[in-house]
Amino acid sequence: MPIAIEDFSLTLGSNSAVAIPIGTLHEIVGLVTEVGSSVHKFKVGDRVGVGVIVGSCQTCDICEQSLENYFPKMKFTYNSTDQDGTNTYGGYSNMIVVHQHFVLQIPENLPSDAGAPLLCAGITIYSLMKYYGMTEPSKHLGVAGLGCLGHIAVKIGKAFGLKVTLISTSLKKENEAIKKLGADTFVLSSNPAKLKAVVNTMDYIIDTIVVVHPLAWLLSLLKLDGKLVTVGLPEKPLELPISPLVLGRKFVGGSCIGGMKEAQEMLDFCAKHNISADIELISVDNINMAMEQLAKSDVKYRSVIGIANSFPPPNCSM
Amino acid sequence: MPIAIEDFSLTLGSNSAVAIPIGTLHEIVGLVTEVGSSVHKFKVGDRVGVGVIVGSCQTCDICEQSLENYFPKMKFTYNSTDQDGTNTYGGYSNMIVVHQHFVLQIPENLPSDAGAPLLCAGITIYSLMKYYGMTEPSKHLGVAGLGCLGHIAVKIGKAFGLKVTLISTSLKKENEAIKKLGADTFVLSSNPAKLKAVVNTMDYIIDTIVVVHPLAWLLSLLKLDGKLVTVGLPEKPLELPISPLVLGRKFVGGSCIGGMKEAQEMLDFCAKHNISADIELISVDNINMAMEQLAKSDVKYRSVIGIANSFPPPNCSM
Repeated sequence: MPIAIEDFSLTLGSNSAVAIPIGTLHEIVGLVTEVGSSVHKFKVGDRVGVGVIVGSCQTCDICEQSLENYFPKMKFTYNSTDQDGTNTYGGYSNMIVVHQHFVLQIPENLPSDAGAPLLCAGITIYSLMKYYGMTEPSKHLGVAGLGCLGHIAVKIGKAFGLKVTLISTSLKKENEAIKKLGADTFVLSSNPAKLKAVVNTMDYIIDTIVVVHPLAWLLSLLKLDGKLVTVGLPEKPLELPISPLVLGRKFVGGSCIGGMKEAQEMLDFCAKHNISADIELISVDNINMAMEQLAKSDVKYRSVIGIANSFPPPNCSM
Repeated sequence: MPIAIEDFSLTLGSNSAVAIPIGTLHEIVGLVTEVGSSVHKFKVGDRVGVGVIVGSCQTCDICEQSLENYFPKMKFTYNSTDQDGTNTYGGYSNMIVVHQHFVLQIPENLPSDAGAPLLCAGITIYSLMKYYGMTEPSKHLGVAGLGCLGHIAVKIGKAFGLKVTLISTSLKKENEAIKKLGADTFVLSSNPAKLKAVVNTMDYIIDTIVVVHPLAWLLSLLKLDGKLVTVGLPEKPLELPISPLVLGRKFVGGSCIGGMKEAQEMLDFCAKHNISADIELISVDNINMAMEQLAKSDVKYRSVIGIANSFPPPNCSM
């Protein structure tokens, strides 16, 4: 993988764990194998992570607030154009060279494989909850949809001391949500009577549904001043009824991953609360099978490729 | 007008100014003619105002936060069922008896006629700007639509020290917005080139448009972390594109009038900044003509009925 090497870069070697989100690959944990002469944050042997972003200007107003995730020309870890004009390949690699600014320290008690998905799913949930003020203990959080983002939202919501209700169209997720993930309650959204029982009970909703869906019934579950934040990206616009917003002073907002400073804060928070992702660990040889599972939405909740010892040692001179 | 009279009530007499918003009548200013024995906030002769609300429980969590405007069973000044089972008629009356909790002191320098519309339009704008944090000086506020709410939003926005841009489909409103109301700039929203020039420049938008309209282009005018708050109530849901919310951490919220405590704060703020509504003062005899003008949207920006001396003195024994 030809990557420009510069003074501030460091290299993650083959003893890495990488996670496949759908269609991209930008949740990487590994050991540092080399560091550039100006690298001061990390040393060889450190266990570190690389998330969604590997480049931003670092000088503009947005970057100075550590909102690199909203820098308009940010370089993505996967499928961006790198400094040398080639594509970035993220975790589909046996090594990666990254500017230290975009590298995160992985806390000691966080596993490499189950910790890796926090670098996209974890920061996405954590950042929106902090920004929109959705962390007040004992408030009631609804999580709509139980994919990777949803299951992390349940865990982080509980860690913030919230009452968490999983909202899903699938009854088989009830047991999973409550017994395995720690949600307090479950609502089958396809059952009008069940939905009616929780109307006007929630303070916050994190909407992780990626397909087009009505917002009206979700908004009805919110109390006065309720906040609905969506992180799914449905292909078409959603229908937004205005009267629930006006009459209940509610809002519908969005959020996209998080900045580098907040990503480190999130990792430390997750380590403190023993939060990691539920994953299916696969070997490099089984990537094609994992892709088929992804296409069938049959993954709980991330496929993570363990690439340790799968490749010859990297050969990269700083 | 049969109204229950109780110890805490006071009466506004015929020396009043009332404003007609579309379809309702709930912006009333007048002099107190009588007070109940337990009234301590007002005395006979005080110039006071009554806005949209004349009743709430005053004991629940919502009322205790002075969010009477969100109390689910609040009594409206116009077209609600009063305690005695009759309708409330608001300002279409020669006197009104109101619990002192729902009566506001009109500051000395605020005119009765042009001040009256603040009791709905003023508090609606002021409350949403305070709640959603849209008051940071030098930030850029877009006001979409120039009716009564829009023209008050321009004035209050300027008083908060914001740069204000009026967004309208009608070129004839440019002069009005800038020369008369004090907006800094004007954008003709039907001109794609003009719109393009202000993409990604606004921090806040107050959307007062009452008909169904697309949100996509309004959202494109907002910067990162931009806030769009709507107070119009279009009959049908609006199309909400999700990617601008997610990729720009923006939100679309709503808000509905304001509570009694905040309404007094708003009146004091408007008095301090010499803000009142632009009105067309009419006599009782001309109400039908005013209604025809309203139907044609041909009012700048509120018709206010001056009822002083139009009726015999009220006869109301406390």
